Amino acid sequence: MHTSQRAAAMRSSTIRDLLRLADRPDVISLAGGLPDPDGFPVEEMAAIAADLLADVASASPALQYSSTEGLEPLRAWIAERHTATTGRPTGPDDVLITTGSQQGLDLLGRVLGDPGDVVAAESPGYLGALQALRAAGLDIVGIDVDRDGLRVKELADRLARGLRPRIVYTVPTFQNPTGTTLPDVRRRALAALADEHGFVVIEDSPYAALRFRGEVVAPVAAHSDRVVSLGTFSKTLAPGLRLGWIVGPPEVIGAAVRAKQAVDLHTAGLSQHVALRLVEQRDWYDRHVARLADRYGERAAALRAALVDRLGHRLELTDPDGGMFLWATPRPDSAPIDARALLPLAIKAGTTFVPGDAFAAGDHDLLRGALRLSFATAPPERLRTAVDRLAAAIDQLDGRPRPRISRGPLSQVK
Amino acid sequence: MHTSQRAAAMRSSTIRDLLRLADRPDVISLAGGLPDPDGFPVEEMAAIAADLLADVASASPALQYSSTEGLEPLRAWIAERHTATTGRPTGPDDVLITTGSQQGLDLLGRVLGDPGDVVAAESPGYLGALQALRAAGLDIVGIDVDRDGLRVKELADRLARGLRPRIVYTVPTFQNPTGTTLPDVRRRALAALADEHGFVVIEDSPYAALRFRGEVVAPVAAHSDRVVSLGTFSKTLAPGLRLGWIVGPPEVIGAAVRAKQAVDLHTAGLSQHVALRLVEQRDWYDRHVARLADRYGERAAALRAALVDRLGHRLELTDPDGGMFLWATPRPDSAPIDARALLPLAIKAGTTFVPGDAFAAGDHDLLRGALRLSFATAPPERLRTAVDRLAAAIDQLDGRPRPRISRGPLSQVK
Repeated sequence: MHTSQRAAAMRSSTIRDLLRLADRPDVISLAGGLPDPDGFPVEEMAAIAADLLADVASASPALQYSSTEGLEPLRAWIAERHTATTGRPTGPDDVLITTGSQQGLDLLGRVLGDPGDVVAAESPGYLGALQALRAAGLDIVGIDVDRDGLRVKELADRLARGLRPRIVYTVPTFQNPTGTTLPDVRRRALAALADEHGFVVIEDSPYAALRFRGEVVAPVAAHSDRVVSLGTFSKTLAPGLRLGWIVGPPEVIGAAVRAKQAVDLHTAGLSQHVALRLVEQRDWYDRHVARLADRYGERAAALRAALVDRLGHRLELTDPDGGMFLWATPRPDSAPIDARALLPLAIKAGTTFVPGDAFAAGDHDLLRGALRLSFATAPPERLRTAVDRLAAAIDQLDGRPRPRISRGPLSQVK
Repeated sequence: MHTSQRAAAMRSSTIRDLLRLADRPDVISLAGGLPDPDGFPVEEMAAIAADLLADVASASPALQYSSTEGLEPLRAWIAERHTATTGRPTGPDDVLITTGSQQGLDLLGRVLGDPGDVVAAESPGYLGALQALRAAGLDIVGIDVDRDGLRVKELADRLARGLRPRIVYTVPTFQNPTGTTLPDVRRRALAALADEHGFVVIEDSPYAALRFRGEVVAPVAAHSDRVVSLGTFSKTLAPGLRLGWIVGPPEVIGAAVRAKQAVDLHTAGLSQHVALRLVEQRDWYDRHVARLADRYGERAAALRAALVDRLGHRLELTDPDGGMFLWATPRPDSAPIDARALLPLAIKAGTTFVPGDAFAAGDHDLLRGALRLSFATAPPERLRTAVDRLAAAIDQLDGRPRPRISRGPLSQVK
């Protein structure tokens, strides 16, 4: 059976293919962006499920068809938080509940752009966003990321030279894959560019709640009304719920609701009702997220210390204030590293990571030596063991004749 | 903020707008396709949730990120049933779990067709399918439905005259909106046309399990390997789970998996694990579905008897052997009915239905006098009251000067 031309253009996510490699108890994964399961509020959810499913009357709203927009009190809770962080009065009608924030990206790609429109996206950047926006027929132009996140100056230069994006995509807080945070001055500059040039900023904030250090930086949405915000419960409650949201102006939310009707009718009711009852205990949620952030902070410190100790002569590291990832690049004064050639050696040694060029929206070669390292899934002592294994794999790579650069898809790495 | 041209082309579903109108306790809805909540297996789900959420180890697979394909044992269960009904050996790798079968339509629209490709679809037919396929940029050509479902002869004539569809979309068993079932001889003819002309049949079967009368008719997929099958737990377990599936050849499933990665990563884990544990008790599932079908059978009989009694002189009715809907059209020997003009009168009288032309894939005028009536949501005595109210509304309509035909969107009806 023939599939469509656009189907042939869709590639499998290298990260998701890698998750399979990581799924062996003897391998300590620094690859996947999996939250720590010990942070899932299982006890609370068990009590909620028992209460919710106690009888038909109580369970029906969660089990019946429901509105495409999503549960009104859950949207109200999200709107209230958005108001608090952005200073913009936001109500439940400004919010659409999505099947994870990945669906938010799919919907926004379709309702903000037409095929052939240009998206300027962080490079390296979140792969799933690039996939969703490409699937919507949009053309991606990469804008570099440095230790302070998106190089807004580079974007400004490209705009001055004639780039006309419909959308700029960014994860400004604890970026995936680099862990960097866009400073306030760059956020204001980005917002000003949006107002001047008329593009829409998609501000994707899956990790922002997981701050373990430093002061909160106001979202880009605080500085312009040309921002559409994406959020998720995947990193604060549980990814398996598949619960995210879009906050945006009425015309965007209206269009996204109509698109979602055709896409999956509405988001799973059981997930929405469980999440609502969890967040209704307001103090619980903030305490819960603070506990998660503390744990990730410990792990980030442990991973970074081990890397400095064992590989500080070879790698430069970002120093994230939150989130799940840090980014390692070869020191300019040391031998280069081919991260794709390193990966099979690392797996043999018992650890995994994601090679940097998997996240490229632009020039792959620039990112060829980089590694994305996740500190979220393993406790400190396991992270230290993983770094020992990574160091052994790099030693082994150094002992080899300089490998030719492989340009094949990462999914062929076994 | 400007939205895209394609966003402007997406219209709101009239059915979903109508659900709001129906959502008043004093209105007996014959409009929505809502399953009876008393059929939700709430007790069983409560026990399963308690067990699943008993500790982190047991809950994690449901709460963590998981595979795009869906839970393997759930796919195996679906594959086994598919093998039994079609006679084609089917394994878990031939199945993709989707966020409801609505998502199956969205994914198939994208991976089976490119913008501008033609879909031949039943008219009247399932609105959500038309929305999803149109959103994928496909052009819809309507093929009429009669008392035996899709007029395969008409399709054959159109093909002989040069129609070249990529896809033919059909709900062959207890069709939405007419409740008709495609006889075996037409199924074989449709399969032969697919083999001859090289199109793909999307065989959508949300209601097939709800047979309350007559013999099972083998699916179209039994007769050709050019069929992709869609199924769902929405009508047998609960729609709020948002659980459906695609069964198809490896190249289609592979492409749909890659598309789904970009669309929502994977289907909600809590829903998948609850459903798996429900169906693992094999005898329970078959007994449960048989009970549901019995209940719908009683209701269908009650609705049809009341309609014959009160409105037999005005309406011709289909006589479904299962599902949720029957279809009423004005008798050729009686006065015409403008169903859109009737609707506000019916709502005032305390009942609702969906005007037939809302389901048109082709000529709206042909369906202008038709009504889709759902017998799923209300018990027999309420159905009889609803028919009294409908009859009163028709009397009132007859007393009026002949209304001009309104071509505005149904959503403007208040």
